[in-house]
Amino acid sequence: MIQGKVTGRVWSSKHIETMPGGALLQVTIEGGGTLIAFDPLGCAIGETVLITQGSVAAAFFTKIKAPVDALIIGSIDET
Amino acid sequence: MIQGKVTGRVWSSKHIETMPGGALLQVTIEGGGTLIAFDPLGCAIGETVLITQGSVAAAFFTKIKAPVDALIIGSIDET
Amino acid sequence: MIQGKVTGRVWSSKHIETMPGGALLQVTIEGGGTLIAFDPLGCAIGETVLITQGSVAAAFFTKIKAPVDALIIGSIDET
Amino acid sequence: MIQGKVTGRVWSSKHIETMPGGALLQVTIEGGGTLIAFDPLGCAIGETVLITQGSVAAAFFTKIKAPVDALIIGSIDET
Amino acid sequence: MIQGKVTGRVWSSKHIETMPGGALLQVTIEGGGTLIAFDPLGCAIGETVLITQGSVAAAFFTKIKAPVDALIIGSIDET
Repeated sequence: MIQGKVTGRVWSSKHIETMPGGALLQVTIEGGGTLIAFDPLGCAIGETVLITQGSVAAAFFTKIKAPVDALIIGSIDET
Repeated sequence: MIQGKVTGRVWSSKHIETMPGGALLQVTIEGGGTLIAFDPLGCAIGETVLITQGSVAAAFFTKIKAPVDALIIGSIDET
Repeated sequence: MIQGKVTGRVWSSKHIETMPGGALLQVTIEGGGTLIAFDPLGCAIGETVLITQGSVAAAFFTKIKAPVDALIIGSIDET
Repeated sequence: MIQGKVTGRVWSSKHIETMPGGALLQVTIEGGGTLIAFDPLGCAIGETVLITQGSVAAAFFTKIKAPVDALIIGSIDET
Repeated sequence: MIQGKVTGRVWSSKHIETMPGGALLQVTIEGGGTLIAFDPLGCAIGETVLITQGSVAAAFFTKIKAPVDALIIGSIDET
């Protein structure tokens, strides 16, 4: 998994039918780079999150075949 | 997913049989790099799009086994 | 596989339900970059480990469908 | 998919049994980097090609389980 | 696939149960970076090899579910 910080949210009104409803968050990855990840947890901007990618991310969706290849699976506890 | 801007279109007359008909768009990724993504949405040059990759992209095609590992799944709303 | 050194541990109290119980270790990859990998072996900070990624990592979990795309599969013997 | 230019060909006399017969082309990727891709189309050196990767590439082979994670799926038309 | 040169071997006495017996070689990739790949061919240090990655690498193992995401599939002939 990779760790990153939520830096924004994007909206996509024009999308393919299988796109799941829910938040698409912009996450800046530790070390550089930006991803757009699906957020099933209700994370806020500034939160540090854990992201899983690829077919492992898509497998989270069991009722639909979602085109999601980046999924927030947890929020990192501040220490 | 990754976010990028559509910068062109490519054509491939000589291709394998399972290549789906439709637009192949050149997308410049935020942060660097270029991908060629299949576009089921009719996006235009200059549009900012959301791309899913790998087997998750190929799973969009349910009737054929398409050799597509990069798929435009939405257009990002301008804010 | 990639090789890296365990540099820390993270905790995630807020996570999706399918997250397996167990240690999430921060691993600095040889050559640069950092991953968070699931550790089924009880590795310690400073240990050099071998990591497998993607759906191959998730396939380790046979009873649950774990959202794990980075798994420590071994500790490299010091020579 | 990624776009690249064919820059050479490699041969591998010593290989695993499931390696399919056919050309293995060296392709320089636009933006940097080099891949070795399986070519079912008979491409020539200097040709600009479209490559799909990962399990999507392997799925092209339906009769054998080929260890191919990079496949030329088309040649880009010159414009 | 990617091409690289075998630069060493690693041993892992402490590993998960599904790790297959056999050589784990350190391979320096053309262009930079290092991988640890499973070697079913008995390659030597200094040999130039072809590596397949991800679930395609794991699919080589048909009797066990091996946690291998990098596999040497051939040795490149010297020309």
